[in-house]
Amino acid sequence: MHLLGAHLVQVETGRVRIDLPARPEVSQQHGYVHAGATSAIADSAGGYAALTLMPDGDEVLTVEYKLNLLAPAAGDHLSAVGTVVRSGGTLTVCQLEVSAVDGDRRRVIAVGQQTLIRLRSDRR
Amino acid sequence: MHLLGAHLVQVETGRVRIDLPARPEVSQQHGYVHAGATSAIADSAGGYAALTLMPDGDEVLTVEYKLNLLAPAAGDHLSAVGTVVRSGGTLTVCQLEVSAVDGDRRRVIAVGQQTLIRLRSDRR
Amino acid sequence: MHLLGAHLVQVETGRVRIDLPARPEVSQQHGYVHAGATSAIADSAGGYAALTLMPDGDEVLTVEYKLNLLAPAAGDHLSAVGTVVRSGGTLTVCQLEVSAVDGDRRRVIAVGQQTLIRLRSDRR
Amino acid sequence: MHLLGAHLVQVETGRVRIDLPARPEVSQQHGYVHAGATSAIADSAGGYAALTLMPDGDEVLTVEYKLNLLAPAAGDHLSAVGTVVRSGGTLTVCQLEVSAVDGDRRRVIAVGQQTLIRLRSDRR
Repeated sequence: MHLLGAHLVQVETGRVRIDLPARPEVSQQHGYVHAGATSAIADSAGGYAALTLMPDGDEVLTVEYKLNLLAPAAGDHLSAVGTVVRSGGTLTVCQLEVSAVDGDRRRVIAVGQQTLIRLRSDRR
Repeated sequence: MHLLGAHLVQVETGRVRIDLPARPEVSQQHGYVHAGATSAIADSAGGYAALTLMPDGDEVLTVEYKLNLLAPAAGDHLSAVGTVVRSGGTLTVCQLEVSAVDGDRRRVIAVGQQTLIRLRSDRR
Repeated sequence: MHLLGAHLVQVETGRVRIDLPARPEVSQQHGYVHAGATSAIADSAGGYAALTLMPDGDEVLTVEYKLNLLAPAAGDHLSAVGTVVRSGGTLTVCQLEVSAVDGDRRRVIAVGQQTLIRLRSDRR
Repeated sequence: MHLLGAHLVQVETGRVRIDLPARPEVSQQHGYVHAGATSAIADSAGGYAALTLMPDGDEVLTVEYKLNLLAPAAGDHLSAVGTVVRSGGTLTVCQLEVSAVDGDRRRVIAVGQQTLIRLRSDRR
């Protein structure tokens, strides 16, 4: 997150939004934000969303995720939202959505689905 | 690729390998390479592998990919291999494998599957 | 669809629902509907949803899909909803949701994401 | 498995093969085996492969899977192979491959990736 310049902008129970300014360092040759950066903020948004439903001290690891890239990541900044669809004792499943924002225009550029595993602080 | 410091180390027909040194800039708080960087080199390895089976001038876009993260990305460098399993007129499907290399030890840390779409140079 | 006993119950633009009665023939040893049947109706719901946005005569093929199984498929019947999230000239992306319905209770048991390719009738 | 007429034909440590005769009941309008049946045997092959690495009495549930459908499922029978790529205390990851066999010809028609969770007999 540090390298990329992303920041948490909204934290609700089971739902987190992360924004990433479209700086040259995270963009590829055509001026679009690189797919790796899109993936990174989507993955992080889901991970933080999962944590909102766990006791302090617990951590999560991404088991797997799948992302459909729908449109070029063009705009002022990207905005990734992770939403928990199932929170179990061990596994959490999130839906991921990344939008490209250009002034007033917002366009969904990626949708995904993610599985995370909980690392309980009382068993570490 | 530029930002991350990754480089193409092997290009065969239908198979490409990309290496990424584990520099601090691409690592997260525990010292492991960030999942976004792992994704980025896996995605790029598959994309370049797809291109090896197309005429010069064609390009590819990633339609979607899925990645299972199997183990922490710890080591001197990461090594991502993309292998084409089906190359059609429009769509290409690749398998992705990322290993963490630490001196002589090599450990598979992620496996994935990716779908790409071809942009023919003669139709652009 | 014939073998399984599933039927289309709702067709809107970009959204289709398919119901499957939980008969013994589609259930496994624990009395739950088999994952293969869950997958089949989810896949079909997405495919029909994609078709609602295309001219008559066009067909679609499933390129790939990913399904998270969230809970056992227990109930009177399963209900699968496919919703188009992106409809392009060549590719369509759908979100899939399957619920188990038991009398008045409805529980989401699977969520998924699917990519389809269009076969235009005028190019066949 | 019973409904579909599939049967286990090969069980090695970490690798299982399941065959499914292409009977009319599992085929769709074009004479190809239905994607639901392809998914079901792929999913089962992965599940049984996972079990080969666990003590007797343990069970597994499919957490999620992703399947790319590469070609029509045409032939005498389908053959699904599940291979474990990572077996952990809680989660197992498998690669899935389904071929259509027509006399001497064998063609890969689907590749997939699957995550399973272990239900230990000593904790039930």
